[in-house]
Amino acid sequence: MIEAIDRRIPVAGLKQVCRDIFMAAKVPATDAAILGDVLVTTDMRGIHSHGVIRCARYIECLQSGGIKAATEPVVLSETPTAIRISAAGGLGIPAAVKTVRKVIDKARTVPVVIGTVNHSDHFGAAGYYAMCCAEAGLIGFSMSNTCPLIAPTGGSKATIGNNPFAYAAPGKTYRGILFDICMSMVANGKLILAAANGEKIPKDWIMDRDGLPTDDPTEIYRDAVMMPFAAHKGYGFAVMVEILSGILAGAAITQDVHSWNTVPGSDSGTGHCFIAVNPEFFGGLDDFRSRVDVLIERLTSTPPAPGVEKVFYPGEIEFERERVALENGVLLPKASLEELQRAAALVNLKI
Amino acid sequence: MIEAIDRRIPVAGLKQVCRDIFMAAKVPATDAAILGDVLVTTDMRGIHSHGVIRCARYIECLQSGGIKAATEPVVLSETPTAIRISAAGGLGIPAAVKTVRKVIDKARTVPVVIGTVNHSDHFGAAGYYAMCCAEAGLIGFSMSNTCPLIAPTGGSKATIGNNPFAYAAPGKTYRGILFDICMSMVANGKLILAAANGEKIPKDWIMDRDGLPTDDPTEIYRDAVMMPFAAHKGYGFAVMVEILSGILAGAAITQDVHSWNTVPGSDSGTGHCFIAVNPEFFGGLDDFRSRVDVLIERLTSTPPAPGVEKVFYPGEIEFERERVALENGVLLPKASLEELQRAAALVNLKI
Repeated sequence: MIEAIDRRIPVAGLKQVCRDIFMAAKVPATDAAILGDVLVTTDMRGIHSHGVIRCARYIECLQSGGIKAATEPVVLSETPTAIRISAAGGLGIPAAVKTVRKVIDKARTVPVVIGTVNHSDHFGAAGYYAMCCAEAGLIGFSMSNTCPLIAPTGGSKATIGNNPFAYAAPGKTYRGILFDICMSMVANGKLILAAANGEKIPKDWIMDRDGLPTDDPTEIYRDAVMMPFAAHKGYGFAVMVEILSGILAGAAITQDVHSWNTVPGSDSGTGHCFIAVNPEFFGGLDDFRSRVDVLIERLTSTPPAPGVEKVFYPGEIEFERERVALENGVLLPKASLEELQRAAALVNLKI
Repeated sequence: MIEAIDRRIPVAGLKQVCRDIFMAAKVPATDAAILGDVLVTTDMRGIHSHGVIRCARYIECLQSGGIKAATEPVVLSETPTAIRISAAGGLGIPAAVKTVRKVIDKARTVPVVIGTVNHSDHFGAAGYYAMCCAEAGLIGFSMSNTCPLIAPTGGSKATIGNNPFAYAAPGKTYRGILFDICMSMVANGKLILAAANGEKIPKDWIMDRDGLPTDDPTEIYRDAVMMPFAAHKGYGFAVMVEILSGILAGAAITQDVHSWNTVPGSDSGTGHCFIAVNPEFFGGLDDFRSRVDVLIERLTSTPPAPGVEKVFYPGEIEFERERVALENGVLLPKASLEELQRAAALVNLKI
């Protein structure tokens, strides 16, 4: 979507750069390393909208006081199958990683575990955390609310978040299945690209500021509102995530969630929710993995529609990109590199 | 969608008719009463596609031996937070109700519970079970796999189920939130209606038998394939339900699930999954209920788009229909009444 440069950057080096930038912004080394891993892994999977391109804005939030650099998540309450955590106004990514690790630890001995986080901020790509669960042999669910970004079905204003949701499950010879989405009809990046190319867009992607359907992508620069995918279906899933990540987690909901992106100096109040299910309690992990493989093979054996080369399983494209990036380095879009350089400049670091 | 008759039928009487029909088909009284409650409640909510219209086909399955009339679900394994059940080839609806009751019982003392069912059959409307949880003060999730009915994104053949998924959450002054969907772009009923009216349909609803997009709804009678909602998003959610209800539950998956609708004499091997989360462990149920009310009020306060009367919250329309039906009786479509009469005739019952 965004112009990619043709130089591949080695993974370890790129993670180190991120770590250095966050450490220079007074983020503790452990948290800075977590940030590097989450952001670079996301770029490796080709989800550049949620990779290192976010560094500069995170730094701005840290520097303006909207996010605390050196704070440790606090356990609010805990049982063998649930944990409630407050990110205590710190960065969303380290708080989410630490929570998911605790959820995974618990899920080693019980069939299902739920963990929530409140008083948090942007947690990057939801898929990262779901995949942590899958890599531990669990089915993982990961979600977060956001500030209002999409309109409920029939509405003309954004009153609910474009709440990300992801799940992942482990395979046997296959790495597994990974699904990571937001609730809008299309990602913002597609609108920006269509606008740049002077193209028209389908009329169910956005509404103009008056709530009227439009095929003009440049309306996104004039207070257009994103529409949920599949009308009431995307709306309903956005509400589901709001219930779990906002209401249940004790986080801010809807209009009380502040945009880290437009109001970097405010405490966003974002919440997350993670659920892990352990197949050991349901016929055994090995059998589960084998059956995930069967599912993958059946899906990918579907005869393609005319003009389609092959049918993918959820996550296949991301896993393949990640494999190539691990081997040959990450191919970053120009905008990502620019934002990384801007982040470095913000903390007076030469990269 | 289907022509409704103008005579409202009292709820209790309609439930009794269903019960009598199933009892005449040798279904034990308790299970027959459950079937009456689930099917009629579904009609009360206006989901006529999954109400009493299904009676006749269930009876045919019972009479042809595809479903066992008098069998009790078997607990395969159990922990304080999980239960695995086999429906033992019996009717899906009673097995699902009994499982959800056990899940709810467990969730009174732990934060999260998961229950699965295998060796089952069609379980009716997923929303019924999610709502049972909400009425017990829990967040409920309910899902089932089905025989292959939709094409994976890019595929030309139906290789994954149109797997229903529902969730519900309790409110305080509001009854709560209820969301119940399947994974196709549109329900079959909409296609049948468009075909009957000689209308064209959008090209992302179905593909013809060759995998080509079509705007002709009558292709549904010539082996057309339904497409998932929002392309890869509906596909990914269908896979999620297949993982939980099929793989995890130890049920049949994809092509191994037989259609109760087209092959009534076969054991369908369907699986279900239910998850309940107890807000008592997350800041308290009362606070949770109040915040669900706030969410509902914020969503419904969204300014409507031009031409739209009001913005609904998920479940609002169904709850209102249910309330009216409880007061004035159920308004059944002609097709539902005909199928009910056919069911009665199959068991030599006069209704």
